[in-house]
Amino acid sequence: MKSTEIETDASLPRLKITLRLLHNDEIAMGPGKAELLAAIQKTGSIAAAGKTMNMSYRRAWLLVDVMNRSFSGPLVHAAKGGRHGGGTTLTPLGLQVLDQYTKMATAVSHTAQAYLPLFSGFMAKRTDGSPTDE
Amino acid sequence: MKSTEIETDASLPRLKITLRLLHNDEIAMGPGKAELLAAIQKTGSIAAAGKTMNMSYRRAWLLVDVMNRSFSGPLVHAAKGGRHGGGTTLTPLGLQVLDQYTKMATAVSHTAQAYLPLFSGFMAKRTDGSPTDE
Repeated sequence: MKSTEIETDASLPRLKITLRLLHNDEIAMGPGKAELLAAIQKTGSIAAAGKTMNMSYRRAWLLVDVMNRSFSGPLVHAAKGGRHGGGTTLTPLGLQVLDQYTKMATAVSHTAQAYLPLFSGFMAKRTDGSPTDE
Repeated sequence: MKSTEIETDASLPRLKITLRLLHNDEIAMGPGKAELLAAIQKTGSIAAAGKTMNMSYRRAWLLVDVMNRSFSGPLVHAAKGGRHGGGTTLTPLGLQVLDQYTKMATAVSHTAQAYLPLFSGFMAKRTDGSPTDE
């Protein structure tokens, strides 16, 4: 989910929505960081979470570092014992921020969706070989 | 307006929203293309419109070409007589698409805005020297 992509109906155009929350001109939260948080919660490890996104440990750690600096407290609590230690978790604040961001993205998708049928009459026929071409 | 940026109140975090309408895996409409359309409508020229966005004539023309291919007809009617001919206009379809995209972006901004007060309690204090720091 690099961005939220809406495609409810094959006859409707596809829409990509990206929501980025800024803090001090850094991206405090966005689609990639939200996906990383969810993966950390699932895997218990920053390295393993990064791997599910084809991201180096260094890159994943840098994203976590930006998040931990942007909010009023850390979103991720890194377990001691090295990268194989496991047990890395989201803090209660991390869970709240991820939940709130996800809710906002869902609400925004719903709003945008209402506009897609009107667009569909404006589009050229698809030529990308999709079996769902009109 | 590379993206729609919401910042109604200095105490709220800033949010950037990007809406991209896809067609055949190309971006048929997005913040940059919408801004270009509006500038063409205003200046009557692809070259002049591109210049207001610090964009080369070639780049502006390529964006117009993608739009003209993505929709059921051209969005821009280029005037004959070369780049200084003037009189380049949006077609009725171009006006409709721009209007529809703008309405969708506005509606999405309103939806997202409702979530920002909840985020503001989660953020670290700003250190970017903004005079509106809390």
